[in-house]
Amino acid sequence: MDIYSYLKAVREKKPLVHHLTNWVTIYDCAQVVKSFGASPVMAHAPEEVADMAGMASALVLNIGTLTTEFVESMKIAARAANAHGIPVVLDVCGAGATPFRDHKSFELMKEARVDIIKGNASEIARIAGRDVRTRGVDAAAVREDLADIARLLAKERECVAVITGKEDIVADPASLFLIRNGDEMMGHLVGTGCMAASVIGTFAGASPGGLAAAAAAGLACYEIAAELAVKGCAGPASFKERLLDRVFHLTEEEVSSMQKVTAEGAAAR
Amino acid sequence: MDIYSYLKAVREKKPLVHHLTNWVTIYDCAQVVKSFGASPVMAHAPEEVADMAGMASALVLNIGTLTTEFVESMKIAARAANAHGIPVVLDVCGAGATPFRDHKSFELMKEARVDIIKGNASEIARIAGRDVRTRGVDAAAVREDLADIARLLAKERECVAVITGKEDIVADPASLFLIRNGDEMMGHLVGTGCMAASVIGTFAGASPGGLAAAAAAGLACYEIAAELAVKGCAGPASFKERLLDRVFHLTEEEVSSMQKVTAEGAAAR
Amino acid sequence: MDIYSYLKAVREKKPLVHHLTNWVTIYDCAQVVKSFGASPVMAHAPEEVADMAGMASALVLNIGTLTTEFVESMKIAARAANAHGIPVVLDVCGAGATPFRDHKSFELMKEARVDIIKGNASEIARIAGRDVRTRGVDAAAVREDLADIARLLAKERECVAVITGKEDIVADPASLFLIRNGDEMMGHLVGTGCMAASVIGTFAGASPGGLAAAAAAGLACYEIAAELAVKGCAGPASFKERLLDRVFHLTEEEVSSMQKVTAEGAAAR
Repeated sequence: MDIYSYLKAVREKKPLVHHLTNWVTIYDCAQVVKSFGASPVMAHAPEEVADMAGMASALVLNIGTLTTEFVESMKIAARAANAHGIPVVLDVCGAGATPFRDHKSFELMKEARVDIIKGNASEIARIAGRDVRTRGVDAAAVREDLADIARLLAKERECVAVITGKEDIVADPASLFLIRNGDEMMGHLVGTGCMAASVIGTFAGASPGGLAAAAAAGLACYEIAAELAVKGCAGPASFKERLLDRVFHLTEEEVSSMQKVTAEGAAAR
Repeated sequence: MDIYSYLKAVREKKPLVHHLTNWVTIYDCAQVVKSFGASPVMAHAPEEVADMAGMASALVLNIGTLTTEFVESMKIAARAANAHGIPVVLDVCGAGATPFRDHKSFELMKEARVDIIKGNASEIARIAGRDVRTRGVDAAAVREDLADIARLLAKERECVAVITGKEDIVADPASLFLIRNGDEMMGHLVGTGCMAASVIGTFAGASPGGLAAAAAAGLACYEIAAELAVKGCAGPASFKERLLDRVFHLTEEEVSSMQKVTAEGAAAR
Repeated sequence: MDIYSYLKAVREKKPLVHHLTNWVTIYDCAQVVKSFGASPVMAHAPEEVADMAGMASALVLNIGTLTTEFVESMKIAARAANAHGIPVVLDVCGAGATPFRDHKSFELMKEARVDIIKGNASEIARIAGRDVRTRGVDAAAVREDLADIARLLAKERECVAVITGKEDIVADPASLFLIRNGDEMMGHLVGTGCMAASVIGTFAGASPGGLAAAAAAGLACYEIAAELAVKGCAGPASFKERLLDRVFHLTEEEVSSMQKVTAEGAAAR
C-alpha cells in the first residue's frame, strides 16, 4: 500500500475540513489539519453549518463536549454533507461513559449517514452494542476481539469502523487494515484521539479511493510523525509541539520506511 | 508533611476528574491533570453531568466564562457530586469583576455543597464579603491579612479556602497551610490559576486524608514543577511546555527537597 | 514613526482587553495579550458583558465561531464600549464564507459603532461589498487593489480598516499604513489572524493617539516577533511557542531596527 500517495493528495488538494468538535481539543484538531497542509474550519451555528459543509471536502463530528443543541447542528451539517457527497467522520468520544452520549451517537447515525465511525476500544464496543463502560473519555478493557467488533460494526452500518489504540483497526465491510505505528506517549497527551479523527477526515476528504484505505493511510502518517516526535521529547507537552511540527515536514522517505500497515480482505488483493 | 505521598496516591489511583470549566484554559486544565497521571473529563450537558460526576473522583467547577445555563449544569453536577461523596472544587475566577460573577458564585454555594473554594486574593476577598474589585481575572490589591480572610471564610462556610498568589494560603476551619513554592513567571502565563484548581481537584480526588492537606500538597507539587520549568525557559510559552513536561516526570527527590509547605493549627500537631 | 513608543505604552498602561472571541484560538488570543504585558479577559454572558466592557480599555470581537446568541452578547458589549469611549475591534473571521457571517457582521456594525474592522483580503473585500467567497477562514484571491478597498471601507464606515496578509494594510479616512513585517510561516499556524486582532485591540487600548497608527504599530511589533521566532523553529508549533516568547521579550532595539512600516496621507505629514 503506497501510504505516501495519500499524503501527497492531501498536500496537493488541500481539502477544506469542516468540524463540529469539542471545546477541549478544538485548537489541536485545527492545527493538525493545517500542519498536514489542508484547511480546517470550525463552525456550529445551525444557520450556517449546511453552507459551510457545502463548500467543504469532509465533515468531522466529535461529541466530546456535546449538548442537545450542538447535536442538532451536527445533524444539519451531516445531512448537508450527505447531499453534497462528502465523507462524514463521527468521533464517538466518551460513548459508553453516559447514556446521553450513547443515545446521541445513535440518534446522529439514524438521522444522517455517517461514513466513518471512530473511537477507542470501549467507545466502539459500546456503539457496536456491547455492555462496556468507558471511563470518562479513556478506553476501558473490552473482552472480545476488537477486529471482530470493527468488522461487524462496519457490516451492520455499511460504514468504515476505526478503533484506535496500541494497534489501530480500520474495517469496512470487505477489508481490514491494521496500523502498528504510534507510541505510548500518545496516551499521555490530551487530544491525540480527537486529532486522529481530524486526520482521518483530512485524508478521506482528499482521497479519490476507498475511505478505509484513506483512514488507514492518515493514521499511519500521523503516528509515524508521533514516532519521530517522541525521540528527544521531554514529556507530553514537548511531544505535542514536535508532533505538530513533524506532521508539517513529513517526507516520503519517512512514511515509506516507517509505515507498519497491513491489509486483509479485498484491500489485500 | 510528606508531600510526595499525595503525588504517589494520584499516580496510583489515577482519579477521574470531572470538569465544568472555562473555554479559555480548558485544554491546559485537562493536560495538567493528565500530566499528573490522572484522567480528566470535560462534560457540561445538563442531561449527563450527574452521570459523569457519579463516576468521577472529584468535580472541578470554574466560572471563568460562565453563563446562566452553564451554572445550571454546574449545580446539577455539584449536587450529584455531593450525593456521590466526592469533593467539589469551585474556582471563583473573576469574582469581584462583575456583579453577575459574585451572584452566581453565591448561588452555586447556596444550592450545593462546595468543599474547596479557590481564587486569587481579590476573588476570595470578594467571596468573603469584602468590597474589592477584581481587574478582569487578575488579582487586585486587598488591604487585609489574607490568611485571616481565608480562615474566616473556611469557618463561615465550613470548607477549605484557597488563596493563590506569591504565597499560597490553604485554610480549613482547624488548620492553615502556607505554600511558598512557585515562580513569578506563572503570573505571565494565561491559565496558571485555572490549572491550580484542576490540580487541587486531582489531589483531593486521590487523597484519603484531609482536603486541605491534599490541596496544599497539590499546589506544592505543581509549583515545584514550575520552579523546575522556569530554568532555561525563553518566556511564558516555553515555560508552559516545560511545566506540563515537568509535572509528568516529577520525582520524590524533587518534591522532598524543594517543598516549602508549612502548617499551623491542627495540621501542625 | 516611533513604533516602540506604542509598545512602551502597552507595557506601562497594561490595558484590560475584553474579548468575545471564537473557541478555537481563544487561549492564544489571551496569551498574546498577556505576553505583550497587558491583561486579557474573556466574558460573553449577556448579563455581564456591559460591566466587563465598562472596566476595560478595549473590546475585541471575533465571529470565528459565532452563533445568534453570541452576537447578541457582542452587541451589548459593543454598545457599552461605545458609551464608555473605548475602541471596538471587529475581526470578521470567515466573512464571505457563509451568508450568515456576512449578515451578522453587517448587523453588528449597524447596531453599534465598530472602530476597527479587521480581516484577510477576501473577508474585508466581502465586507466592503465585493462578490468574493472566502474559503472557510482562509483568504481567497481578490481581483482589485487591496489598499483601495481598505481606503474606501474606512471612508464609507468612518473607521479603521485593516487587511492582513503578506503586506498588511491599515487605512483610516485620512491615512494609509503599510506593514511589510512578518513571515510566511504565519500562514501555517492556526490563530495568527485572530491573535493579530487581539494585538490591535491591545495597542488601541493603550494608545493616546490615532487608532490607525496604534493598529499599525501593534501589527509591526507582533510580526517582528514572528520574524525573530521563525529563526531556528522546526515547524508551526515550535514557531508559535517562540512567537509568544519573543513578544514577551521584544526590545526597543529589535523594534526600531526591524520595523518596515510606511505611512501615506495625513499620517506621513
